[in-house]
Amino acid sequence: MTDLPTHVDIHEEGPREGFQIEPGPISTADKIKLVEALAETGLHHIQAASFVSPRIVPGWADAEDVVAGFTPKEGVHYTALWFNANGLNRALVFRNKLTITGSIALTASEGFTQKNLHRSHAENVEAMKKQTALHLENGVEVPRIGVMAAFGCNYQGDIAPAQVISTLEDGLAIAEEAGADIKYFSLADTMGWATPLRIERVLGEVRGRWPDMPISLHLHDTRGLAVANAHAGLKMGVTQFDSTVGGLGGCPFAGQPKAAGNICTEELVLLCEEMGIHTGVDLDALIEVGRMAEEIVGHQLPGELIHAGSLDAFRRRAAA
Amino acid sequence: MTDLPTHVDIHEEGPREGFQIEPGPISTADKIKLVEALAETGLHHIQAASFVSPRIVPGWADAEDVVAGFTPKEGVHYTALWFNANGLNRALVFRNKLTITGSIALTASEGFTQKNLHRSHAENVEAMKKQTALHLENGVEVPRIGVMAAFGCNYQGDIAPAQVISTLEDGLAIAEEAGADIKYFSLADTMGWATPLRIERVLGEVRGRWPDMPISLHLHDTRGLAVANAHAGLKMGVTQFDSTVGGLGGCPFAGQPKAAGNICTEELVLLCEEMGIHTGVDLDALIEVGRMAEEIVGHQLPGELIHAGSLDAFRRRAAA
Repeated sequence: MTDLPTHVDIHEEGPREGFQIEPGPISTADKIKLVEALAETGLHHIQAASFVSPRIVPGWADAEDVVAGFTPKEGVHYTALWFNANGLNRALVFRNKLTITGSIALTASEGFTQKNLHRSHAENVEAMKKQTALHLENGVEVPRIGVMAAFGCNYQGDIAPAQVISTLEDGLAIAEEAGADIKYFSLADTMGWATPLRIERVLGEVRGRWPDMPISLHLHDTRGLAVANAHAGLKMGVTQFDSTVGGLGGCPFAGQPKAAGNICTEELVLLCEEMGIHTGVDLDALIEVGRMAEEIVGHQLPGELIHAGSLDAFRRRAAA
Repeated sequence: MTDLPTHVDIHEEGPREGFQIEPGPISTADKIKLVEALAETGLHHIQAASFVSPRIVPGWADAEDVVAGFTPKEGVHYTALWFNANGLNRALVFRNKLTITGSIALTASEGFTQKNLHRSHAENVEAMKKQTALHLENGVEVPRIGVMAAFGCNYQGDIAPAQVISTLEDGLAIAEEAGADIKYFSLADTMGWATPLRIERVLGEVRGRWPDMPISLHLHDTRGLAVANAHAGLKMGVTQFDSTVGGLGGCPFAGQPKAAGNICTEELVLLCEEMGIHTGVDLDALIEVGRMAEEIVGHQLPGELIHAGSLDAFRRRAAA
């Protein structure tokens, strides 16, 4: 089955993922500079900050300053991440500047839920019921069910597609009880276990069960397969991806300190555009922002196009 | 069309590609150590040296010492690279230790032939006629037609599939005139222009024209798409790949000094094995050799599994 979309929405998460994991410190001004530069590349969704505990994630202690500081560009949706009522309240302060929507965030791996959230899946379902109600009470829509570790888990090993289906069912039950209108599923390869075959299998099951529900993929390049996985996703009709400029980010789980981060936005854009799938992104402009990101973090980033340049740049040179 | 093979042959070129481009100097002993370690991983084809001009490629000035120095493992084919009569003669000295076969090496891009070889395609065809005859006179079989820049070129831009077909026809004409028995085609993405779609198109044309000729792919990860391209190749029935441990190598063409090298052997093995395609390689052993390669060159290599570990290692840990 191939079911190629004509366009995809790319949700840029470089600032949030990158500055969460970089040893830094990265100045607030540099964070703002990156967010503003990304908005000039044609990207329409940029995750600009993380409202998490500064004790746990010191790199985002200045979330308020970053969000207050950047000048928004019309037509661009700026988002943020939070995990609890305190984070939501911090985000709601910027309601007029940020696109604030909620997520029912579950995990297909009991082992990961225990290690990462220190609770069972059942306890997490209860927590998500409360959080979903809290969002709706605050007038915040909850259009998304997210499933972490949907393709495998460092703590639990392989994850059966049936487990992903059952986790999505749990999410839909939470949504129904709370009255949330789910508009898409987000499947995350949190620890880099996905392969093209696994993408085909899991997405085949999910699409078989919910044929009309749009699917977003959140891929990590932990084992170098992220672009191949994105390609498999495109062929299964995926229309939305999270990614990070330059491949910013990393893998904080299970002793992989030097592991790669998210799928690199430039490589994703190259893949899509060369297949005739529209992203709206100016790749050469994005590569320049990748180079800026590399300067900001002060070390080489995994994104290859930063160092190789785009095909279009060489096409123009060859034609000249 | 999917036409998945049950097994693939991997031709490891890490020593040859890597030590050709690393600023080094890398000691002869380290080169020998890497060649010997690779042979213990289950790889059956290892390109151990390059008999090229030490003036142009100083990293291989010690080719004779490396080939003389390593202890061969039974069942492993050790190969070398050369470009002219002098190189062939240097290789023939090690006829009992190396697997010596010739190649009709052409390029689908006139622009690249001019820039890289300083001659026209027509002149290159003449040169290959002489070289093929020379190989056969020396009792060296010529089973391979290689086409460089088969998926695009930094100097010429996109390459039409018809150009690849016509280049292969030129190669077959050379083979016929000389009496060489061609056993496979090798298509090289010399400058990292391939995309999964381009792989499908070029291989579709080649397989349509010569349905029974085995195809080998030589992929570079210049723009991060190598694993996706390998996956597309597997689906088109490709049964042989060149690759380099740790992603050793680089791109010496058109000002891309920091660009990535060849497709990484570990990632290729992971991709194949997770699809049930047999490689014969012990991935965990290979990852250890990748770490050795990283120590030898003294900087981080692009291969992600060196830093993330294999899925099987995590599976064992999760099951324990």
